[in-house]
Amino acid sequence: MEQRMYLSNHEFDDAIDIFFKGIQNINPRTEIVKTWEAWGRVTAEALYAKISSPHYNSSSMDGIATLSSKTRGASEKNHIILEEGRDYIIVDTGDPIPSEYDCVIMVEDLIRIDETHVAIYKSASSYQNIRPIGEDIVENQLILPANHKIRPVDIGALMAGGVNDLKVYKRPEVGIIPTGTELVEPGGSLKAGDIIEFNSRVFSAQIEEWGGKAKRYDIQKDVYEDIKSTVLRAWEECDIILINAGSSAGREDFSSRVIEELGEVFVHGVSIKPGKPVILGHIKGKPVIGIPGYPVSAYVIMEFIVKRLIYMYQRLKPEEAKRVRAVTSRRIMSSLKYLEFVRVKLGYVGRKLIAAPLSRGAGATMSLVQADGILEIPQNTEGIEAGTEVEVKLLKDEGDIKNTIVCIGSHDPIMDIAGNLLHSENRDMYLSSAHVGSMGGIMALRNGETHMAPIHLLDMESGLYNVSYLKKYLPNRKMALIKCVKRIQGLMVKKGNPLNIKAMEDIVEKRARFVNRQRGSGTRLLMDYIIKKKGIMPEAINGYDREEFTHLGVAAAVEAGDADVGIGIYSAAAMMGLEFIPIGSEEYDIAVPLEYLETEMIKNFIKVITSDEFKKELDRLGGYDYSHIGKIVLI
Amino acid sequence: MEQRMYLSNHEFDDAIDIFFKGIQNINPRTEIVKTWEAWGRVTAEALYAKISSPHYNSSSMDGIATLSSKTRGASEKNHIILEEGRDYIIVDTGDPIPSEYDCVIMVEDLIRIDETHVAIYKSASSYQNIRPIGEDIVENQLILPANHKIRPVDIGALMAGGVNDLKVYKRPEVGIIPTGTELVEPGGSLKAGDIIEFNSRVFSAQIEEWGGKAKRYDIQKDVYEDIKSTVLRAWEECDIILINAGSSAGREDFSSRVIEELGEVFVHGVSIKPGKPVILGHIKGKPVIGIPGYPVSAYVIMEFIVKRLIYMYQRLKPEEAKRVRAVTSRRIMSSLKYLEFVRVKLGYVGRKLIAAPLSRGAGATMSLVQADGILEIPQNTEGIEAGTEVEVKLLKDEGDIKNTIVCIGSHDPIMDIAGNLLHSENRDMYLSSAHVGSMGGIMALRNGETHMAPIHLLDMESGLYNVSYLKKYLPNRKMALIKCVKRIQGLMVKKGNPLNIKAMEDIVEKRARFVNRQRGSGTRLLMDYIIKKKGIMPEAINGYDREEFTHLGVAAAVEAGDADVGIGIYSAAAMMGLEFIPIGSEEYDIAVPLEYLETEMIKNFIKVITSDEFKKELDRLGGYDYSHIGKIVLI
Repeated sequence: MEQRMYLSNHEFDDAIDIFFKGIQNINPRTEIVKTWEAWGRVTAEALYAKISSPHYNSSSMDGIATLSSKTRGASEKNHIILEEGRDYIIVDTGDPIPSEYDCVIMVEDLIRIDETHVAIYKSASSYQNIRPIGEDIVENQLILPANHKIRPVDIGALMAGGVNDLKVYKRPEVGIIPTGTELVEPGGSLKAGDIIEFNSRVFSAQIEEWGGKAKRYDIQKDVYEDIKSTVLRAWEECDIILINAGSSAGREDFSSRVIEELGEVFVHGVSIKPGKPVILGHIKGKPVIGIPGYPVSAYVIMEFIVKRLIYMYQRLKPEEAKRVRAVTSRRIMSSLKYLEFVRVKLGYVGRKLIAAPLSRGAGATMSLVQADGILEIPQNTEGIEAGTEVEVKLLKDEGDIKNTIVCIGSHDPIMDIAGNLLHSENRDMYLSSAHVGSMGGIMALRNGETHMAPIHLLDMESGLYNVSYLKKYLPNRKMALIKCVKRIQGLMVKKGNPLNIKAMEDIVEKRARFVNRQRGSGTRLLMDYIIKKKGIMPEAINGYDREEFTHLGVAAAVEAGDADVGIGIYSAAAMMGLEFIPIGSEEYDIAVPLEYLETEMIKNFIKVITSDEFKKELDRLGGYDYSHIGKIVLI
Repeated sequence: MEQRMYLSNHEFDDAIDIFFKGIQNINPRTEIVKTWEAWGRVTAEALYAKISSPHYNSSSMDGIATLSSKTRGASEKNHIILEEGRDYIIVDTGDPIPSEYDCVIMVEDLIRIDETHVAIYKSASSYQNIRPIGEDIVENQLILPANHKIRPVDIGALMAGGVNDLKVYKRPEVGIIPTGTELVEPGGSLKAGDIIEFNSRVFSAQIEEWGGKAKRYDIQKDVYEDIKSTVLRAWEECDIILINAGSSAGREDFSSRVIEELGEVFVHGVSIKPGKPVILGHIKGKPVIGIPGYPVSAYVIMEFIVKRLIYMYQRLKPEEAKRVRAVTSRRIMSSLKYLEFVRVKLGYVGRKLIAAPLSRGAGATMSLVQADGILEIPQNTEGIEAGTEVEVKLLKDEGDIKNTIVCIGSHDPIMDIAGNLLHSENRDMYLSSAHVGSMGGIMALRNGETHMAPIHLLDMESGLYNVSYLKKYLPNRKMALIKCVKRIQGLMVKKGNPLNIKAMEDIVEKRARFVNRQRGSGTRLLMDYIIKKKGIMPEAINGYDREEFTHLGVAAAVEAGDADVGIGIYSAAAMMGLEFIPIGSEEYDIAVPLEYLETEMIKNFIKVITSDEFKKELDRLGGYDYSHIGKIVLI
């Protein structure tokens, strides 16, 4: 249990400065490529035309080439007759004009007399309908400056100008070394402690996207000499070396030691979150970066440092990320010690662009998939209050965000299915779901953060669902309830029901390990309601305070043997192959402010949930009664 | 001289509708790929997690795994001592938590007693510092919807969720058949009438950019049976077939006949400009498009039709092009008969975004290289007045446009060199030059269309340059003149001076074919001034009305033997290997409104033209005196 301290804890900007100053003497290498293979490459020198285009005087029309002096005096009344061979030749668009002619008369302006004679009725001027030499490009004219990224249209102009080879910057080769005894290749069976190695695959795609060439090395176990020899091999073969993981202060951290031994560590540890344990160094002038192991930490380092590095090798300036002003949906706490990168979902609700923070764990790969933008919370800030206007760096197209239905509330797998169908049917529409429970959904409606909120809230007095909550919590807002499904709630246990749990009381009696849903969720309210009715104290249930945020989360815990019993809906139990003990049914509906009900987005959503395809999916999952689906109840 | 009429002349939207309705039954093919090779591909089905991630309870800290019940009562005053093996095990971040433990205490909160004992001073709660199973992804959770283009981060989430193979749409294979007896491969020597075949290379890059796979066939001469058999081969091998050129109504147009014979032509001829002679059809359900031969016409059809087609095969929605509001710099005439696509340069001059039309020829490949945007002039419109606010579809990043110095005025090759150096030194800055002559530059300054105007205007009365013109034409504007170069103007003739031209009078005497510069250019003014002084009438010079827009254009005409003599600057003659007869020197300076003089852009420009590197280039070109370069004269 050796505890090593970070060598430093630089502020992010300082760390980046130190690193890029340390490697500033790198000169990108160049190579010669064929113009027609140069798409996406970056010119290493200015390119001038080698020939003019057109390189000869050519006809810009179908017609005849003739001499303008022979046409003088022609008019409607005074036709002039020309003879083929003596006075003219026939030309098509693009044909060369022999030097004895100086103009072209288009076919529409000719009257044919016989096989070899035409009449004209107006005179032609010199160079009429002729594309002169160099009209498009003149020999020695600049076609492209240096440091220009070649687009398809550039290839055309270069080739027209006779430039068939050009000097471009070499795509930097980036070696990726995954390290860690716990890492396994995908596809095999997994045992506890195994981690599927996927960071290197994400890096490879990023590197290709940024114009580099990725070279992945085999997974290296935590053996110092093995890691060192792989780094040396990568140093021989590549321009940039990325060592993944092994950069925290854990027992088996060899990356920084290897870099220190072979070269120099500029920075180890940066005050950002996620991404803190990064190592920035070099080995004999080649940059070496220790990328943290957690996927989101790795993402931050790739985006902010490796991308810039790969661009530097191609002399490309980094694109400016598009930024938008948005309003935070809730309070976001942050540490004074770190500059923090928070992934957010964005949605235009009414006129406000709302930024809702996603899971902040450094291991949350889904937060990167779902993120529409990144919100930076500066160091020395305790956090941001709800309703604050902030600047968000966009990760998606703004148009896509405008076409996104924001859906915050209770979780059910059917919302995923609805979202998928919506996008399949209307390729420019998206459903963005956040699972915060029914009460969370009601609050989001109140704060104007969401277009819709799926809820299933039992009124303990009346025994009815949903309506009373909307009346109580949104008294001044005209609301509608889109009826959705009745669904069966119950207890989930492993196949075979090893503890033989039949009812709520058995959980207490058999000291079963229970897994609950989070406070504010409709399912938790139901659970609280049931045990209260039965007179069971929460403390009597082992794990009553262990909270999962989704039905699938509960089911997964039971399936893994990590809990003996959990509460949730039938479909989640079925998906995980669990046994299910029903304890009641409930109404899962979707609350929508009346003003949004007639929008194109919500109309499309209703079309999706009332479609045969959706109902077929509900049948497949089981446990849903959809006889009233799509009905509108005005509150 | 057979004249065939177009089969139809559809409006553009109608033509697109007819075509896409005609092929609507096409079902994109799918294939299975490995997740780590799927970057940029489009999901053909929704993807659900096969396993949870993490798939075991793991430590989120370096420290010890223990049982929370054993820590109860620990405090600063009441340490609890734990024994390795009995009470805890050591864990690193990511290590699995054995089922007998339920929490992790981080290493920072431990006091080491000896090799096998630690003391703790606060109690731990259940699941503290443990990443529970499924925290990131729960088995069966939706990871990606169908019809989603895979980004690098998606690869991470999919692999974390155990999805190693996925169904994606096949990249459509697009066969490109270049046709035309006049087409030659690049690299050989060219004779009049030869056209370098480069359209197919541009198409290939575009197709790759849009996600398709390009397959280029050999150039086909205008032989009906050859074209037909190549189309048949492409039909066997590809999903989409593009036949390039042969789509005008010229003598050798076989494309439409081939498509008609083998399949069906939906549309031949569309009322757009450029792009009119397009053919849209199919052969047994596979789309076949006859792309016009002119590069800009081809570009329009590729962008508006082929791109959409390639996207359709991947079920991608076309991105919405970014549009900006701009003000036209001058009147743009248009035909009532056509929807016209005008390439424009954009520049922020003061607060106005100015759109200046580029060369409108369908063969102008450079207009595509230089274009910042496309302005659509609707059918049934005669044109757009200068100063009209219009909508422009952006082709470049808006940031790049903001960093562009707009330079409209007289042409000199040194402006290309300055532009290239500017961009090399300041990678986010661009110089955009338009060659409209000195008076054109003065007018552009007057209309607020340009940041600077290079001019060389001789005051016929005083014999001085530039200043009097600024005073006369911009009387109410505070102007500055950045002194640039003195340059030598003269007559250019072929090497060896075959007509033995020594002075202006020889042009008349020897009946030499002359090539002039356009009215409004400083060089033309000089020419007019000289012949007036010498008492030569313009009509006495053969070709006095033949106008080129640049010095290089004049030099190219002489070099090609297309004219015997032209007027221009020494450097242009030298670049083209011509002989040069000096007739005088002149001052080529840059006029700038005073308000722009202190901007970052202009300051950088001045830095560039006063640099040693720039002066070295001037020496290399020859004919320039730069002793006053960079001096500022306030007007």
